[in-house]
Amino acid sequence: MRKGAQTLVFGSKPVILSHAAIGGKKESEGPLAAYFDFLGKDAKLGQKTFEKAESKLQELALDTAKRKLGVSYEDIDVLFAGDLLNQCISSSFAARGTSIPFLGLYGACSTMAESLLMAAAFVDAGFADTAAALTSSHFASAERQYRFPLGYGGQRTPTAQWTVTGSGCCIVGKSGHGPRIEAATIGKIQDYGIKDANNMGAAMAPAAIDTLQAHFRDLRRVPSDYDLIVTGDLGMLGKTIVLDQFRRIGVDLAPVYNDCGLLIFDTKEQDVHAGGSGCGCGASVLCGYLLDRLEKRELRRILFCATGALLSPTSSWQGESIPGVCHAVAITAEGV
Amino acid sequence: MRKGAQTLVFGSKPVILSHAAIGGKKESEGPLAAYFDFLGKDAKLGQKTFEKAESKLQELALDTAKRKLGVSYEDIDVLFAGDLLNQCISSSFAARGTSIPFLGLYGACSTMAESLLMAAAFVDAGFADTAAALTSSHFASAERQYRFPLGYGGQRTPTAQWTVTGSGCCIVGKSGHGPRIEAATIGKIQDYGIKDANNMGAAMAPAAIDTLQAHFRDLRRVPSDYDLIVTGDLGMLGKTIVLDQFRRIGVDLAPVYNDCGLLIFDTKEQDVHAGGSGCGCGASVLCGYLLDRLEKRELRRILFCATGALLSPTSSWQGESIPGVCHAVAITAEGV
Repeated sequence: MRKGAQTLVFGSKPVILSHAAIGGKKESEGPLAAYFDFLGKDAKLGQKTFEKAESKLQELALDTAKRKLGVSYEDIDVLFAGDLLNQCISSSFAARGTSIPFLGLYGACSTMAESLLMAAAFVDAGFADTAAALTSSHFASAERQYRFPLGYGGQRTPTAQWTVTGSGCCIVGKSGHGPRIEAATIGKIQDYGIKDANNMGAAMAPAAIDTLQAHFRDLRRVPSDYDLIVTGDLGMLGKTIVLDQFRRIGVDLAPVYNDCGLLIFDTKEQDVHAGGSGCGCGASVLCGYLLDRLEKRELRRILFCATGALLSPTSSWQGESIPGVCHAVAITAEGV
Repeated sequence: MRKGAQTLVFGSKPVILSHAAIGGKKESEGPLAAYFDFLGKDAKLGQKTFEKAESKLQELALDTAKRKLGVSYEDIDVLFAGDLLNQCISSSFAARGTSIPFLGLYGACSTMAESLLMAAAFVDAGFADTAAALTSSHFASAERQYRFPLGYGGQRTPTAQWTVTGSGCCIVGKSGHGPRIEAATIGKIQDYGIKDANNMGAAMAPAAIDTLQAHFRDLRRVPSDYDLIVTGDLGMLGKTIVLDQFRRIGVDLAPVYNDCGLLIFDTKEQDVHAGGSGCGCGASVLCGYLLDRLEKRELRRILFCATGALLSPTSSWQGESIPGVCHAVAITAEGV
């Protein structure tokens, strides 16, 4: 690795052999509904609590990806997973029944990119023949952990986002058919002093900008090398900041840039304010809509950049600002 | 990787170039005090809150390991870190000022083994020339998050453990002087239905047993191949369970087995009940006492097995049992 570089180039171009996207009721009413493998009818999915329901989302995503590939859990060498709940219980309880060697991650909403880059790295290095990447979020479990109990009926600010109830899973292997993972850029933590926990887009945008710049620099690429550059959940405000900041340095990202939080919901019709958010936002959009389009070759090369806000309610109560991080994964259609 | 194997064998044997152990006041009164690089005089280390103090522990560990090696943060290609606090804020706030590409982990008290295996894997694969592994725990921040506010003065059960206030950091590189990382075994989640959150030793022991068995099987080794097999924080009860269960299958682990939670404190004199616990327990014992002894060749080969209990207060309140995981890292003295 060149000194100062942040980008891993995967010589073997690991293959996304299978992928699955699971969503909830609100996701079933959004513009990407047709790209989900399963859409729940309510917030509980037959479970007793929202937290158990979120774990169920991950179980369904992993099980669906596994079944689509026609393998068993014993065929998966390692599982990388994480989520937003305290102590990442959605992931550990979902993985509990699988007997897959388990490495837990915490990257907040950057987890889909982090887990996918880890899976690709382990496959590329020969540490695993098959590796799974998995994450989730749930509107109701996130609201009560990060903000207020739903019954309180708190008013949402204009910059607030709506946590996606969803999960995404990719199974990565060294050979076979499917989109290929070319490279991944590991982000540095950025903190511009934003303290408003209802404005995650502004807190996380600097991390996306920094990681995108590192990615372009490391690989000597330009935005037009991609059909689509997509952030995980910056929402309307974060997207605007990213576009503005690149414009200031003479780069027009607009023709190729979008955000999963704006793709998954109709922000005007679905009352989600600045857009969707949560680990499950980027995860379910990637593992449904984006990978489907790469498989159909409607997209030839994308850069999936999931951003995470590394705060907790405790850090905010103690007056801290919100550090952000962004990891980017470059994925091509097969044969590109 | 052989099908069903859980052990990564690092052909290049990555080197632990530098390491640092940071502790608190109680650790300064324990039998391993002389092996710490820095021991705080109180629970706050000059910070306003226990959580900020825990983040400071990580900053000190990373900074000390870096200074001992004589490098700057720009020379470290990637940092793997995690901790016990909600959303792993100790790690993200400690990493915020460093500009090191950051990959967050959550493995509960298995995090030192998880981060060290990730660092070794990235160096072995050539994804990084230099990688850091870092974790921490803090008695007061853990008590108020997982159990009760300290001022409540709750009575501790006999099986309860005392969370170590400490942090450990390793900097791993591809060449140079220092102990070598031979191999690492990635654990599977084990859940035997234990629901008592004051009996972590019993909840985590099955994970340690499963990972040790996988390690011996994968590498065709026996316990006597190691001078020391050391779990992270099973404490007295967990240690007894591990010894008992191995004895039942005809394996006497006793001559080479111990637990960091029993090494770091004098359990009788220091009123810590079943022993020390927390990410910082295994981390500070490894990064002080154990690596020092490997450097002096008092130990030639050890197996460091950190166990994590993948519960949250919410999962316990919802009646869930406590899943455990254990990752094991085989480390030798230089030249072995």
